[in-house]
Amino acid sequence: MVSEKISLNDIIDASKRLGNDIIKTPIIQNDYINKLTGKNLFFKCENFQVTGSFKARGALNAVRKAIENHPIQGFLTHSSGNHGTALAWAASKENKPCIVVIPQNTPQFKRKRIEMFDASLVFADNTIKGREECCNETQKTTGYFVVQPFNAFEVMAGQGTLAIEIDDDVPNCEAVLVAVGGGGLVSGISTYFKEKDSVTAKKRLWEDDGASLNTIADGIRVKVVGEKCFEQVIQYCESDVLTVNDEEIKNAMKIIYEELKIVIEPTGGVTFAGLLKYKDTILKDIKNITLIVCGGNISCIDISKFFSS
Amino acid sequence: MVSEKISLNDIIDASKRLGNDIIKTPIIQNDYINKLTGKNLFFKCENFQVTGSFKARGALNAVRKAIENHPIQGFLTHSSGNHGTALAWAASKENKPCIVVIPQNTPQFKRKRIEMFDASLVFADNTIKGREECCNETQKTTGYFVVQPFNAFEVMAGQGTLAIEIDDDVPNCEAVLVAVGGGGLVSGISTYFKEKDSVTAKKRLWEDDGASLNTIADGIRVKVVGEKCFEQVIQYCESDVLTVNDEEIKNAMKIIYEELKIVIEPTGGVTFAGLLKYKDTILKDIKNITLIVCGGNISCIDISKFFSS
Repeated sequence: MVSEKISLNDIIDASKRLGNDIIKTPIIQNDYINKLTGKNLFFKCENFQVTGSFKARGALNAVRKAIENHPIQGFLTHSSGNHGTALAWAASKENKPCIVVIPQNTPQFKRKRIEMFDASLVFADNTIKGREECCNETQKTTGYFVVQPFNAFEVMAGQGTLAIEIDDDVPNCEAVLVAVGGGGLVSGISTYFKEKDSVTAKKRLWEDDGASLNTIADGIRVKVVGEKCFEQVIQYCESDVLTVNDEEIKNAMKIIYEELKIVIEPTGGVTFAGLLKYKDTILKDIKNITLIVCGGNISCIDISKFFSS
Repeated sequence: MVSEKISLNDIIDASKRLGNDIIKTPIIQNDYINKLTGKNLFFKCENFQVTGSFKARGALNAVRKAIENHPIQGFLTHSSGNHGTALAWAASKENKPCIVVIPQNTPQFKRKRIEMFDASLVFADNTIKGREECCNETQKTTGYFVVQPFNAFEVMAGQGTLAIEIDDDVPNCEAVLVAVGGGGLVSGISTYFKEKDSVTAKKRLWEDDGASLNTIADGIRVKVVGEKCFEQVIQYCESDVLTVNDEEIKNAMKIIYEELKIVIEPTGGVTFAGLLKYKDTILKDIKNITLIVCGGNISCIDISKFFSS
């Protein structure tokens, strides 16, 4: 069996496939935060992406590629939230039905976002295994095409389109910080920059949540990076993994809310938490850094809980 | 005595005076909110302005005009927050000292923002009269140049530069909703559009907080519109005044946080609250509406309090 991977061309193809249906999200800089950190930081704001997170990129690429290659009745996935919303949106864009398998403990706020795009919900056990099994069963009864949340080449390539925008908009970028759950985003981004060789990094960096399933960063509760993603990452991310805890994420979120004036979910604060923690050690010699703010799907009730303590 | 007013030319002059030191803030549209309201809404995001509110425009215009015309030792004002921060920033840009008289009950968060730009603080009574008196006394002892928060032609003209950007960026704008406290912003904006005649409004609208001093919208606690502002507004704002209460502001803020993903202070939610309340009555026949999101200076502690109840 040949070891398959995604390449720069897959990401460029994905970009053409997405066209103008994906928002070229803004990159924000802030004088106060640059002064505070001693860095030149570029916040890539995927909280402003369609559906509120970068997941729209991978989902729409996978949906369109599937339609190019197969007769499709509908789409199906399992996701704790953002990928589910993204797939519901992508399927509705192509006028296909969509079923999303979600854990029973998915917050009401995220459920409602999936239903906004007319997807059907199926509730599964709260474990990853539970929802994978439920997804498989639903696939058998419906024949719908499954789009995995991260461990799929089309999804990885779609997320990689984010890197094209960073490459266009950030001058002299030396490092990109990415929050890692299942690894779809970091796969796409590291592939792009490694193959393009356009980040002049002393180190390429990516970040892990320390394998905790209890983090407030519910976008990265996945414990193990997907196999396909791991293959990609092991080749293209050559350096340290930074870990942060919930308190560090909260502190980062506070600064982003008060200074950048943008609403992010906890996972969206992970990269800045890593920056604050490692700016004088691992990141000491790196000045121009892009931080991916991966999503903004959070209810006001949850915002209130985070900042009340 | 000749009745003085600002004109379109004053606003255009102000725009030249500000140059690139003011951010051309983004205008955000949102499919979900347009569907919810049945309108075509343009959110002009002054929460992303330098110092976190539109006040930077008027303050910098006043500071630079003063320096053109007088020998200036320093600047002085009284303000519950955003104008104080804006003047501190504007003075520091011109390397002049600045004193800001603030009520003793000004939140710590807003105090810190003023001090960020090296201004000195003087604490006064919590009444408007108290701080005006304190400001007058400080003026006598220092000789500093006073920049009023709203009731000053240069400030009104500076705030009016916001209208130029709306005019450039919003196609077929029929109405602009503005939150009114002292009336500096609405003076500048109404003057621009009336004299330019470039808003094809069936009605021109502006909004009042119902003269309550107890509103959560601390940017518009001022009870009476400034005299100079009133002269301007009475001529140029020809239609209804919309009023909203705190619950309506909170509800509007919630939708803006969850759907637009931007952080705003309560006063920044006032225009959208008005839109939601009057969309099917006074605003029934108006489709393309610009909502000014006037500021985003709020602490995470306050955000938490607002959304916990």
